Amino acid sequence: MREFVVHQLLAHAVAEHPEVEVVSPPRRYCYETLQSRAVALANGLARLGIGRGSVIGVMDVNSHRYLELHYAASMLGAVLHTINFRLAVEDILYTIHHAEDEWLFVWEGFREQVEPLRPHFPRWVWLTDGDASPESGVPTLEALIAEGGSGWPPQADSISETDTLSIFYTTGTTGRPKGLRYRHRDMLLASFQILHHLGLHEGGARPSSRDVFMPLIPFFHIHGWGTPFFVPYLGAKLVLPGRAGPKEQLALIQQEGVTWLNMVPTQLDMLLEAAREEGLQRLPLKVLTGGSTLPAGLAQRARVAGIRYSLIYGGSDQLATAISVVPEGLDPESEEAAEVLRTGTRPLPLVEVEVRGDDGCPVPCDGKTIGEIYVRSPWLPQGYYKDEAASQRAYQDGWFRSGDLAVRLPNRLLYVVDRDKDAIKSGGEWIPSAVLEAILSRHPQVGAVAVLAQPDERWGERPVAVIATRGPLDEQAVRAYLEERVQAGEIARFWLPDRYVFVDSIPLTSAGKLHKAALRKRLGLDHAR
Amino acid sequence: MREFVVHQLLAHAVAEHPEVEVVSPPRRYCYETLQSRAVALANGLARLGIGRGSVIGVMDVNSHRYLELHYAASMLGAVLHTINFRLAVEDILYTIHHAEDEWLFVWEGFREQVEPLRPHFPRWVWLTDGDASPESGVPTLEALIAEGGSGWPPQADSISETDTLSIFYTTGTTGRPKGLRYRHRDMLLASFQILHHLGLHEGGARPSSRDVFMPLIPFFHIHGWGTPFFVPYLGAKLVLPGRAGPKEQLALIQQEGVTWLNMVPTQLDMLLEAAREEGLQRLPLKVLTGGSTLPAGLAQRARVAGIRYSLIYGGSDQLATAISVVPEGLDPESEEAAEVLRTGTRPLPLVEVEVRGDDGCPVPCDGKTIGEIYVRSPWLPQGYYKDEAASQRAYQDGWFRSGDLAVRLPNRLLYVVDRDKDAIKSGGEWIPSAVLEAILSRHPQVGAVAVLAQPDERWGERPVAVIATRGPLDEQAVRAYLEERVQAGEIARFWLPDRYVFVDSIPLTSAGKLHKAALRKRLGLDHAR
Repeated sequence: MREFVVHQLLAHAVAEHPEVEVVSPPRRYCYETLQSRAVALANGLARLGIGRGSVIGVMDVNSHRYLELHYAASMLGAVLHTINFRLAVEDILYTIHHAEDEWLFVWEGFREQVEPLRPHFPRWVWLTDGDASPESGVPTLEALIAEGGSGWPPQADSISETDTLSIFYTTGTTGRPKGLRYRHRDMLLASFQILHHLGLHEGGARPSSRDVFMPLIPFFHIHGWGTPFFVPYLGAKLVLPGRAGPKEQLALIQQEGVTWLNMVPTQLDMLLEAAREEGLQRLPLKVLTGGSTLPAGLAQRARVAGIRYSLIYGGSDQLATAISVVPEGLDPESEEAAEVLRTGTRPLPLVEVEVRGDDGCPVPCDGKTIGEIYVRSPWLPQGYYKDEAASQRAYQDGWFRSGDLAVRLPNRLLYVVDRDKDAIKSGGEWIPSAVLEAILSRHPQVGAVAVLAQPDERWGERPVAVIATRGPLDEQAVRAYLEERVQAGEIARFWLPDRYVFVDSIPLTSAGKLHKAALRKRLGLDHAR
Repeated sequence: MREFVVHQLLAHAVAEHPEVEVVSPPRRYCYETLQSRAVALANGLARLGIGRGSVIGVMDVNSHRYLELHYAASMLGAVLHTINFRLAVEDILYTIHHAEDEWLFVWEGFREQVEPLRPHFPRWVWLTDGDASPESGVPTLEALIAEGGSGWPPQADSISETDTLSIFYTTGTTGRPKGLRYRHRDMLLASFQILHHLGLHEGGARPSSRDVFMPLIPFFHIHGWGTPFFVPYLGAKLVLPGRAGPKEQLALIQQEGVTWLNMVPTQLDMLLEAAREEGLQRLPLKVLTGGSTLPAGLAQRARVAGIRYSLIYGGSDQLATAISVVPEGLDPESEEAAEVLRTGTRPLPLVEVEVRGDDGCPVPCDGKTIGEIYVRSPWLPQGYYKDEAASQRAYQDGWFRSGDLAVRLPNRLLYVVDRDKDAIKSGGEWIPSAVLEAILSRHPQVGAVAVLAQPDERWGERPVAVIATRGPLDEQAVRAYLEERVQAGEIARFWLPDRYVFVDSIPLTSAGKLHKAALRKRLGLDHAR
């Protein structure tokens, strides 16, 4: 390949790793079949009138179908709108209209969920496991492939690395979803760089071509953190779990010899719980996690089970930015290293990160002074799609202003203390909710925990802790526990929450993060922030 | 950085690894100083009138001076002509005129050697270790830096990844040197990919950010195989050996904690010999070697000393193509793995390799059928500089025709049996001289060995073995030894050389390879091939 174009990735995989498998139950095939199915599919899509610049919306779990659509769309220069199927239907509708989707490709497993959408979109393809279409007269992916033929679409050679590959919508806590268009080059470079960074440093999720990869991060979320691209690039075995729940994921891990996964901390928690229920003591896996803080308690349970992890920091509007590493001079197997891997990320090669204080200057590397993360990288998106105002706020002078808060550790690693303005500003000082959450989560009786801001006349904001308990726990016990942490110098006294709320469970967002917006609403804390 | 531009590499290294050192005796500084010196030098060069597209010839050993010139030239968009200082003066003159060098930057250590050049080139800068210029009125690099100032040259931001970074001349065995122009993007991608490939596979020279790198491959040869770029990219410590001989290299390795080196097999042999003379039993190093076959005997001696190696295949006219790996399923510490690492390379991700038979079709993966290597990659040069005819012969339909011969092993790895048409065609069948050389080199009394083609009326060509002995050895003994190899099925009977020549030493080319052209001349075998 001469340029960074998605479908050109396959040539190397097919030539050098022809026997390596893609497993997507109940299907199983090798890279050569992936390529020939993608070619046939591209021809089928072309017959529907899909071509360069056509936008096609896709709703599917991680499957061979979705993977094939990635490569087929690339061959035509069509744009994949990777729809977040966990959104409310009205939000899905909004993004479909905003992205100007011409066709929708929907997995039959979502049939009920998408019923309200169906009448609005006559140009529809069902993604099915079998040959039969759920609706007569409506094409299926398998039918398109069966009729597609084996000659490459003529435009495949003319697709450029600066063509748009895909569109995705962020799910911010406020306002409408914002659209991002990713170019082939940017998405491939960012994806590969995740792999390269992991490969060049000591860390928990250090991969090699011997690993078997299973992405639990859904493809709609920055293409499952790049897995449909970097696994074929590496020529490694790829296992796609479909809608597998934690128990089925465990079974796939064992059956297919999976050794490397990505997931948000919540999924890790569920996987460990499933392993516990199955009586599985050891789960020797490499896990790349991110999306939210990895709580210390969860990290510890993972380590005991034999899981080694690395933490990634990034997001839809900045792509891959930083991954945790074991710093030079530290024993990778030490407890200290495990703690650094949970928290201390290093920017990927070619990425520049600045943690800027209120004065706009980089904060010192003291592990204390909190600033906002600014990012500059080769693959930074140019702005939000059709949203000039939001673009100008977030993308300035080639930098992306993340809204996330971090400190620089004395070894220069980046410690993200809070995401997306979740932090609490009390008396002009930041209280990082994520740090409080991490400390509270270490308490044996605490299941999930969210720390929110409550308006305060005197201080501006003050913290509230919302706790889902695992066992008997009252406010007095929590206060005593945190008091010990204050005595130990771990946290400042003014960080101590003013209020404690005990709940049965904490709602999660579609990306598996704590759904603080919903919690705020429930607790009447939903002030304009 | 937004594009792949050399000087933009430093921002990440300076920000994330400010304390990491560049050591170039007697100098020692950190990446921040490298950047500030390069900025000052760029300003100094600009005052000389050097700007975008200016070609500057450089003759230097691997040093901080040369490294700084890389980054300073990049900031101005000037083109570095990396002169092969081992060429004869008349060939150096030819390349300087062909590349249209406007300035020459020459290390004072070459003063005697370049005396014949000096009068022809009034625009001259001496690369010195101290402040004093060897010639009054002629500027030195240090003076340019001292007067350069700290503001970035204004054009630094406008350099594009498709601008030319450097020019280098191949030293073919026949005809005039051929020029290659490398673009920023291509050279950086190829350099990084060497590192990525090594990092993602089990292999002898698997690097990490903990390694300390010392390139013994001179910068003029494809920029020391990319080291001035990929070491700062990784943020690792870089040791530049200058003109250090094997003993001084050993001292640097010990003093600076060097763990990763690149070198041709001849240099490895010399390093091991130096270690033996110093009474050094263990030399635990990672070595990337290439340029010619790694003889089995040398590989074995290296292993015993604790050296782990990987083999790279590539060249000035194709850049990085393939590196040996331990295939999946093989114990990386086994004897078998060591043998695979010596011979079996895998194309880098994104690189396509075809081994084509006489019929133009790919050869089977049988480990026997010999074909010619064709390469397609993202960083392939577009042709030879100002040489349309040679370009058309070598670069066809996006592929580079290497002239090198290889077989595909059953595990698909690429086994290069002979470089650049050194093989012998006898009765229409190829006899790979490198394989014969490798087998002969395993004989304890054989020091160096070259197998050449001798014209033959009946067979076209027949092999001649030229042997530099280590101890008592005669033709009868060698014949008996090879006969055993035939009996063992290692080589075909018709491969047995027709003639044996015993010599004191075998001449080497400027790149440290067997100088077969010179040998042919000496033996009267210098027919047109």
